[in-house]
Amino acid sequence: MIDVIRVAHGVFYVTDLARSKDFYVNLLGLNVLHETPGAVYLRGVEDREWTLKLELAPEAGVKHLAYRVRSEADLEELVRLAERQGLPHRWESELDRPRMLRLQDPFGLPVAFYHESKTHKWLLQDYHVHRGPGLQRIDHVNVMSPDVEGTMNWYLRELGFRLSEYTEGEDGSVWAAWIQRRGGVHDLALTNGVGPRLHHFAYWMPDALSIIRACDILAGARQPERIERGPGRHGISNAFFVYVRDPDGHRIELYTSDYITVDPDFEPIRWMRDDPRRQTLWGAKTPKSWFEEGSLLEAFDGGWVKPREGALQGMPVHVI
Amino acid sequence: MIDVIRVAHGVFYVTDLARSKDFYVNLLGLNVLHETPGAVYLRGVEDREWTLKLELAPEAGVKHLAYRVRSEADLEELVRLAERQGLPHRWESELDRPRMLRLQDPFGLPVAFYHESKTHKWLLQDYHVHRGPGLQRIDHVNVMSPDVEGTMNWYLRELGFRLSEYTEGEDGSVWAAWIQRRGGVHDLALTNGVGPRLHHFAYWMPDALSIIRACDILAGARQPERIERGPGRHGISNAFFVYVRDPDGHRIELYTSDYITVDPDFEPIRWMRDDPRRQTLWGAKTPKSWFEEGSLLEAFDGGWVKPREGALQGMPVHVI
Amino acid sequence: MIDVIRVAHGVFYVTDLARSKDFYVNLLGLNVLHETPGAVYLRGVEDREWTLKLELAPEAGVKHLAYRVRSEADLEELVRLAERQGLPHRWESELDRPRMLRLQDPFGLPVAFYHESKTHKWLLQDYHVHRGPGLQRIDHVNVMSPDVEGTMNWYLRELGFRLSEYTEGEDGSVWAAWIQRRGGVHDLALTNGVGPRLHHFAYWMPDALSIIRACDILAGARQPERIERGPGRHGISNAFFVYVRDPDGHRIELYTSDYITVDPDFEPIRWMRDDPRRQTLWGAKTPKSWFEEGSLLEAFDGGWVKPREGALQGMPVHVI
Amino acid sequence: MIDVIRVAHGVFYVTDLARSKDFYVNLLGLNVLHETPGAVYLRGVEDREWTLKLELAPEAGVKHLAYRVRSEADLEELVRLAERQGLPHRWESELDRPRMLRLQDPFGLPVAFYHESKTHKWLLQDYHVHRGPGLQRIDHVNVMSPDVEGTMNWYLRELGFRLSEYTEGEDGSVWAAWIQRRGGVHDLALTNGVGPRLHHFAYWMPDALSIIRACDILAGARQPERIERGPGRHGISNAFFVYVRDPDGHRIELYTSDYITVDPDFEPIRWMRDDPRRQTLWGAKTPKSWFEEGSLLEAFDGGWVKPREGALQGMPVHVI
Repeated sequence: MIDVIRVAHGVFYVTDLARSKDFYVNLLGLNVLHETPGAVYLRGVEDREWTLKLELAPEAGVKHLAYRVRSEADLEELVRLAERQGLPHRWESELDRPRMLRLQDPFGLPVAFYHESKTHKWLLQDYHVHRGPGLQRIDHVNVMSPDVEGTMNWYLRELGFRLSEYTEGEDGSVWAAWIQRRGGVHDLALTNGVGPRLHHFAYWMPDALSIIRACDILAGARQPERIERGPGRHGISNAFFVYVRDPDGHRIELYTSDYITVDPDFEPIRWMRDDPRRQTLWGAKTPKSWFEEGSLLEAFDGGWVKPREGALQGMPVHVI
Repeated sequence: MIDVIRVAHGVFYVTDLARSKDFYVNLLGLNVLHETPGAVYLRGVEDREWTLKLELAPEAGVKHLAYRVRSEADLEELVRLAERQGLPHRWESELDRPRMLRLQDPFGLPVAFYHESKTHKWLLQDYHVHRGPGLQRIDHVNVMSPDVEGTMNWYLRELGFRLSEYTEGEDGSVWAAWIQRRGGVHDLALTNGVGPRLHHFAYWMPDALSIIRACDILAGARQPERIERGPGRHGISNAFFVYVRDPDGHRIELYTSDYITVDPDFEPIRWMRDDPRRQTLWGAKTPKSWFEEGSLLEAFDGGWVKPREGALQGMPVHVI
Repeated sequence: MIDVIRVAHGVFYVTDLARSKDFYVNLLGLNVLHETPGAVYLRGVEDREWTLKLELAPEAGVKHLAYRVRSEADLEELVRLAERQGLPHRWESELDRPRMLRLQDPFGLPVAFYHESKTHKWLLQDYHVHRGPGLQRIDHVNVMSPDVEGTMNWYLRELGFRLSEYTEGEDGSVWAAWIQRRGGVHDLALTNGVGPRLHHFAYWMPDALSIIRACDILAGARQPERIERGPGRHGISNAFFVYVRDPDGHRIELYTSDYITVDPDFEPIRWMRDDPRRQTLWGAKTPKSWFEEGSLLEAFDGGWVKPREGALQGMPVHVI
Repeated sequence: MIDVIRVAHGVFYVTDLARSKDFYVNLLGLNVLHETPGAVYLRGVEDREWTLKLELAPEAGVKHLAYRVRSEADLEELVRLAERQGLPHRWESELDRPRMLRLQDPFGLPVAFYHESKTHKWLLQDYHVHRGPGLQRIDHVNVMSPDVEGTMNWYLRELGFRLSEYTEGEDGSVWAAWIQRRGGVHDLALTNGVGPRLHHFAYWMPDALSIIRACDILAGARQPERIERGPGRHGISNAFFVYVRDPDGHRIELYTSDYITVDPDFEPIRWMRDDPRRQTLWGAKTPKSWFEEGSLLEAFDGGWVKPREGALQGMPVHVI
C-alpha cells in the first residue's frame, strides 16, 4: 500500500508577489525560507520545510497540492497506480524537492507526491523571531468537489486515507468528508460544491488567542474585510477557526484544537447536512461567499480545470 | 457635586426564575449570594456585593439600574436635584441596601442610588469555586435612547459623568456616547434607538479566552442561539466582546480589555456613525435584532416606560 | 511487527479513595466514567475510554501502565515475544477491557496491552459539563530507569517505538529518551534515576491558560503545595507544563503544545545533559524531589519492583 | 488637597544604551516614541505619553519616578508642601514635559510631578505594529524602604494616596504597603528592605498569555536568565506576574489582572508577613536576589541616595 505521510505543501499562483508577501509575511507572520525573483517559499514556525509557495503568475490559481510519502518506493507505486488508472502524470521538481510525482487524480485535482525533501532548522523555539499570530505548521487542505463521495472513496481505497467525519444529506448522500493519514482530524477535506477547486489551505495555530491576534492585526492594518468567516468553533473537528482571504482571494484557515484519531475502533463521526452545529458549533452565520468561492486548480496540460456542478444542490442552513 | 462612584447593580424582572437562574448560574457561572422564593441575587467573582437581581414577575423588564455614591450626603444632594428638577423620586430598599433613592431621570430611566451596602467576602481568589466562564465584576450598562445628546448632557452636567467616546452623525448629531465615573471607558453607554430601554448589562471578563469559553459552554448546552453577536472586537472601547440573550431576552455583554481614562487631558474619542471600525474593529456583521431589541424599563408609578422613537433615523453600516 | 497504537491508561493504587477522587475530580476536573466501592475510573474530556483508574489499596503505587494495540493478533505476537524472552506474563482484565495481556518488561516495568475496549461518548463538545482546568486526554507516561539506554532499545526494537528526543551525557551515554508510537513527541519517556518507578503520568491540556487555571484552582483550594514544578516551558518537547502531586505523591503532568513527528526523515533531537535549556527552556529551577521521587511499580507476583540505582550518577544543572 | 492622578513615568540610567534598547524594544516590545543620542523614550501600546526613559550614564540607577497631577495648581501646592516640610525641590523638564517639579520626599525618594504633557496618538488599535509580548501601559512602581510605615503615612496624608493592601509583622509593624490614586491596586508599593531603592517598575499586560510569551521570547533569545521570578500569581493584588531584569539589573514586572478599589467602603486587605499566599498565591519560591537587590536612586544634589537598613529584619518564608 502506498504510504502517504501527510499533506505537505501548496503552490499558489498570485498576481502581485509583493502584495501577497506583505499579507502572508507581515500580517499572518509566515516565515520566508527562500525567495527568488518570481516566488516566495513560506513556512510556519514548526515547519522544517516550506509549506506554501507563492508564485507570480498572470492569473491567480493553485498549481498543485502536495503530499509527502514514506519512501521513493511509494512514488514508484504511485506511478503504477497512475498507469493502471490512466491518470496523467509526470516527474517535476520544486526547490528543496528534486523528485516530485505530479498527477491528476480521477476527479481533476492536481496533486504532487514527494519523498525527498531538504529540511531546515525549525523556528519553533526561536520565539524571539516569531511574528504576528505565529502560524505554526501546515494542517490540511479543503477541496470543493462535485463528487465528494467518489473522490473520498478513491482516496480511501487507493491512498489509504481514513475517514474521521462526514456530512450526510437526508438521502444518505455524502456532502462532505474529512479524511486523514496523520492521526489528526484531516489532511484533506472534501466539500460539496462547484469544483474541483481549492476551498482553503489551513495552518495550525498555537491556541485560540493567536487566532484572535490574527484578527486584531488585520483590523490594525485596516484590512478587516480579509476576515471572511469566524472566529468560531466548528462542530466538525471541534476546531476553533477563522477564515481569511489573501489579496487574490485564496482562502486560508487558521485552525486549532482538534483531536486525535489513531484508535483502531475510531468511529467516523456522522453529521446531518442541516444540523447547524456541524459547521458552526457556535458563531456567526456563514456568508454565501464561503460556500460559493474557491481557487481554480491548474489542469495537467495548462489552463484551469473547469469547475463542474455536482448532483447535490442546495445550501446548508445557518447561512447569511 | 454629587459623587457617583460607579454603576452598581441592575434588577431584572424575569418570568421563570428557575430557567433564568439556570442560565445565569449554570451557564454563565454567576454566583448566588442570596436567594428568596421570588428572587436570586447574583455577583461576579470580584463583586463584594450582589450586582444583578433576578426578580420573578409576570412580564420581563428592568426594575431599575443603580449607582453607588460616595456618601449619604450625596443622596441628600440627589433629593435636592430631584426636587429642583421635578423628578419623581422616593426612598426604597433592596436586600443589603437599606436606603436607596429611586428616581426617574428626565428621560424616563428608572435609576437608583445608594451609599450603604452590606459587602461580602469576595470569591476572586477562591478559584476552586469559580464556574464556567467566570464572570468577574459588573462593568457597565447600555441604554437605548431617543435623545442621546440630551441624556448624555444631563449625566455629564448633573452627575459629573465624563465622556470617553462618542459617535457623531454627518450633521454633528450625537448618536451614541460612552460616559464614566470610575476611570474606565464607561459606566453608562447611551445609544440611539427606540427607548428608553435597556440595551445591555455588561460583566467584565478575566480575558478573551473566558469569553470563548462562554460560547463553548452555550454551544455545549445546545443553546448557541443565545449568542446574538460576536465574539469580536469593538472599535469603541477596544473591548473584546460577546453579546448573549437570557431566556427573557435581556441582553448581557461579556466584555474585556478596555483602557483607562483618568488623565486630565484625556480627549474623548470621536467616531463617525458610518465608520465600520466603530462598532466592529473586526467581526461578523451585526444582526438587526441588536439594534432593534431591548428590555422595557419600569415606570415610576408602575407599568413600563413607553419607548419613543427619536429624531435620528437610520441604521449604521455593517449590519446584516 | 507488533502494532502499538498509543499509551492508553494507568492504574494507580491510592490509600484514600475519597481524598484522591476529590483531587482528581474536584480540583483537576477529570471525569468519572465508572465508580465501584474500591475504584474510580477517570478520563479527560476527549478520552472515549477511562484513562486513569484509582484503586484503593493499603499502599500507594502503580499497578501497571497500559498500551493499546491495533488488533488481537498483536496480543498473540506479544505472547510469543514474552515466551521467547522469558518475560512473566498473564491475561488479566479491567472494566471495559476484557482481555489484557500483562507482562513484565525485561527491566521490571509492569505493562499491559489490550485491543478490545468499550468506548463511551466523549465529552469534548459538552463544554457545559467540563470542570476546572478541563484535562483533555491522556498524553504520555514517564518512567525513571536505572538503564535508560537498554530500556529504550528494547522498546524501539521489540515494540516499534520511534525516538523523538534524547539526552546525552558527555561520554555519549543516554540519560533520557522520549519515544513514541502516535506521531507526537512521546507515549513513553525514560529518564535516568533510581527505578524502575513511575516518574509521572501526563494529560494533554487545551492551552497554556488551562494550566494556569489548574494552578489557580489548587491555590484557591489552599493546596498550592501540590504544585511541585512549573509552570514553565520544556526545551525537550517544547511543551508548556506544570507538575502536581496527588495526595499519595503520584506525579501528574499537565502538558500542552508539543509538535508532530510523523516525517520519515525526522531527526531525533539530541540535548546535552547539562544544557539548562533542555529541561527548562525557561522557568524556575527544578526542586530535587522532582529528580528523586517516584511511584513504586507493582511486581508481577505482588509486592513492589525494587528500585535499583543505575550506573549514571549525578544531577543536571538548574536544580535547587 | 493635591490631586495626584497616577504614577506616570520613570527615568532609568543605563550604561549601554544600545544593549538596553535591544532588551526593551526588541525583546519586551516597548515602543520608541523619541530617540536622542543619549536617550530613548519608550511607551506601551496604550500609553499616550512616554512612560520609561532610558538615559545613558556612567552608572546604572534611577533619576526619578514621576506622577502626573490634575492641574498646575497642584504643582503650586506641592511647592508649598515642600517649603513647609523643608524638602529639597526645583523645577526641571523632560522632553514633552516642560514643567516638572522635582523634589526629594522625606525618605529620600527622588520624585517628580507634572501636569502639562504632550500626548501622542496611541498604538492600542494599531495591532499590526505591536511587537513581542505587547506591553500595554505603565502600571506601578515599587520602592524598597527602610521605613515603610513612615513613607506610607506621608503619601497617604500629604498626597492623598489610599491603601489597598498591606503586610503586617506579628507585632503589628507594617512590612509592605500597596497604595493608589487611580482606582486600581497600586500606583506605588512600598516594601521593607535596604533603601530607598527602586524594587521594580511595572507594565500592565493584556493577559496572562502575553506574559508567557515574554518568557518564551527571552528563552528564544537565549536570555532566560533575565527571568528572575515567576510566572506565578501574587496573593496581594491577585496579579499574574513575571519579574525580569534588564541588562543593568533594573527590575521590570509584567503584571496583569488585578481588581478595582473605587468603593468608599473598600477595606484594605491585611496579610500576615509569613503567610506564604501573600507573595505567591502559587508559584516557585522567590530567589533571595528578589528581596535583596534594587536600583539606586539619584540624590537631589547628585550621586546616589545611600541605602539604609531599616528596623525590621528578616526574610519572609517561601524563599529559596
